[in-house]
Amino acid sequence: MDGRIDELIRMAAARPDTITLGGGLPARELFPRRALTEAFVRTMTDPGCAALQYGWPEGSEGLRAWVAQRLARRGAAVEPDDVLITSGAQQALAIAAQILFRPGDRIGCDPESYPAALDLFRARGLLPTPSSTGVAGFYAMPAIGNPRGLGLDDRAREALLARARLLRTPILEDDAYAELRFAGPPPRPLLADDRRFVFHVGTLSKTLCPGLRVGWLVAPRRYRRRAVEAKHASDLQANSLAQALLEDFLARTDYDALVERARRFYSRRAKALARALRAHLPSFRFTEPAGGFTIWVETDREGDDAALLETAIRRGVSFDPGRSFRVDGRSAPIALRLSFAVEPAPRIALGVERLARAWSAYQREARRAA
Amino acid sequence: MDGRIDELIRMAAARPDTITLGGGLPARELFPRRALTEAFVRTMTDPGCAALQYGWPEGSEGLRAWVAQRLARRGAAVEPDDVLITSGAQQALAIAAQILFRPGDRIGCDPESYPAALDLFRARGLLPTPSSTGVAGFYAMPAIGNPRGLGLDDRAREALLARARLLRTPILEDDAYAELRFAGPPPRPLLADDRRFVFHVGTLSKTLCPGLRVGWLVAPRRYRRRAVEAKHASDLQANSLAQALLEDFLARTDYDALVERARRFYSRRAKALARALRAHLPSFRFTEPAGGFTIWVETDREGDDAALLETAIRRGVSFDPGRSFRVDGRSAPIALRLSFAVEPAPRIALGVERLARAWSAYQREARRAA
Repeated sequence: MDGRIDELIRMAAARPDTITLGGGLPARELFPRRALTEAFVRTMTDPGCAALQYGWPEGSEGLRAWVAQRLARRGAAVEPDDVLITSGAQQALAIAAQILFRPGDRIGCDPESYPAALDLFRARGLLPTPSSTGVAGFYAMPAIGNPRGLGLDDRAREALLARARLLRTPILEDDAYAELRFAGPPPRPLLADDRRFVFHVGTLSKTLCPGLRVGWLVAPRRYRRRAVEAKHASDLQANSLAQALLEDFLARTDYDALVERARRFYSRRAKALARALRAHLPSFRFTEPAGGFTIWVETDREGDDAALLETAIRRGVSFDPGRSFRVDGRSAPIALRLSFAVEPAPRIALGVERLARAWSAYQREARRAA
Repeated sequence: MDGRIDELIRMAAARPDTITLGGGLPARELFPRRALTEAFVRTMTDPGCAALQYGWPEGSEGLRAWVAQRLARRGAAVEPDDVLITSGAQQALAIAAQILFRPGDRIGCDPESYPAALDLFRARGLLPTPSSTGVAGFYAMPAIGNPRGLGLDDRAREALLARARLLRTPILEDDAYAELRFAGPPPRPLLADDRRFVFHVGTLSKTLCPGLRVGWLVAPRRYRRRAVEAKHASDLQANSLAQALLEDFLARTDYDALVERARRFYSRRAKALARALRAHLPSFRFTEPAGGFTIWVETDREGDDAALLETAIRRGVSFDPGRSFRVDGRSAPIALRLSFAVEPAPRIALGVERLARAWSAYQREARRAA
């Protein structure tokens, strides 16, 4: 976490008139409030009241079976006992990193990657690197990447698997956005092709809601016991309440229909953001995303993306500065991650107009300073 | 975690007729189900739906203010910004251990201590030790210890503080059971006397319910930023749902009355267990606890406490074997931790009768084997 960026993000959040094009938050319109309320009321009538009591470190059996069954549908031979329920996908990454790596280990990543994973690696003394030479493992988002919202093509996917097998190093497969591929069902996970090296990480935070903090780790079987022990040492167990709620909710919900609705919803918003960018910021380069919540924008300008963020916030719009995603932490050339997930289309358009004005103002200021 | 003990505990849990004198679970009769249901319904009407959305890594402001205010009442000068909300007390210990210690560090503990803390230390390559020589820090439960259910007297408390100051080493103050001191208000925490070396850990798991997984860490101010960063890297944030529920619940509940009720409830059950032990197992040595959930029983017998546990489970009663609590991991002389928290008094008595029969059977078997 960069202290100055953190401060600016908090400043933006505290201003009620900010249009939010920053952050990885899902749209709250999609939260199934009523169904979760009904599930809550039912869980409170359970005589054992498992929702409020301690549970096992590996998580509830029903939820592990649900995860295993969904992964099996995507071609991975996963049993409920292979699944460890974690406190969100982040903890699944943290547990995998803890049992696999030692301080000083190099972790192969895309040149731009998920900031909280990079922060985690750095906090543990690991060295994320955009190369695959001399690495102790890989971190990848093969289905839908972050920040670009693009998946690996077949060739890149095969190359990654082959490289890991050759080096006999693990791959941390972060599958967080896989279900939110706009053009249909999630792709075959790496896990389906390799159970010896792939540590698969998933979550309900993007499709359902993040406040429950429920994710999972599927580790190779020889690591299962160590993963459960690391989980127990970290926080005993994922929260029982969310697990009980989800067991009830998922048994009564057409989850595929819910995901399908979310896909269409975010796909529309992605188009709205792309349209607005082309109209108001034609110098910004980007590829339309295949899924997820965000568009990654690149520019040719050297400069300070934190200063640009500050200018943008003063004009009522937030974004995520490129340096947070870059493995080398560089600010220049300036890049931005823009989220289309939380604001409705008209506000996305207005946000991009504000961003265009901020961009002009920033360039004027930069020229004046030069 | 000892694999064999873990297996036996799961075996006991799977038998519906087992009388539970093992584990650290609170009584589900005390869970405020109705009030939490009302709180849930209210949180779902919040337009921002904070209960289901991402939150800040340090936790919700209202909950941090509540914790600070309760600690202030006990003499500690704590501001809301000093409080980090964690995924239970266990994570507070894990975060403190992560930012303070390096593999190979010795951690001063009581000769018998909380197993999940010992597991955590060992998982991180730390060496719990019953001495205070050459230690990098201390782990202590000054208010109410686990497994004995006894607090430190004034002299031992002062000696611990003096030792930490002399060595300039941190104390992890585990305050989990402080509110459950039978004879009245929780004692002055170490935190009230030292903000430079004391890392204070608390939880709602024992007084309210553990399934929400909400605890806290109050670190010295110079460590605040590192603690928040470690929390973010570990699992981003504690679950929003429990935090929103608790904010609503605590604002409308007489928490002191609820704690007072729990104190009387567990005090009665502690007396029932002590009575049954004196009647049926007069050779078992124990001191009546001053609070908490458990009685620590010692015997003069050498032997294998896992074999005793297996015999007990076959006779329909569970307990926690002494080795889990011992810093040196030894099974002999045989000791047991017995919980009075989850079973009503008549079943506690019946459980102790079963335990007495198991104890006789175990001794017969041991003699035969010798």
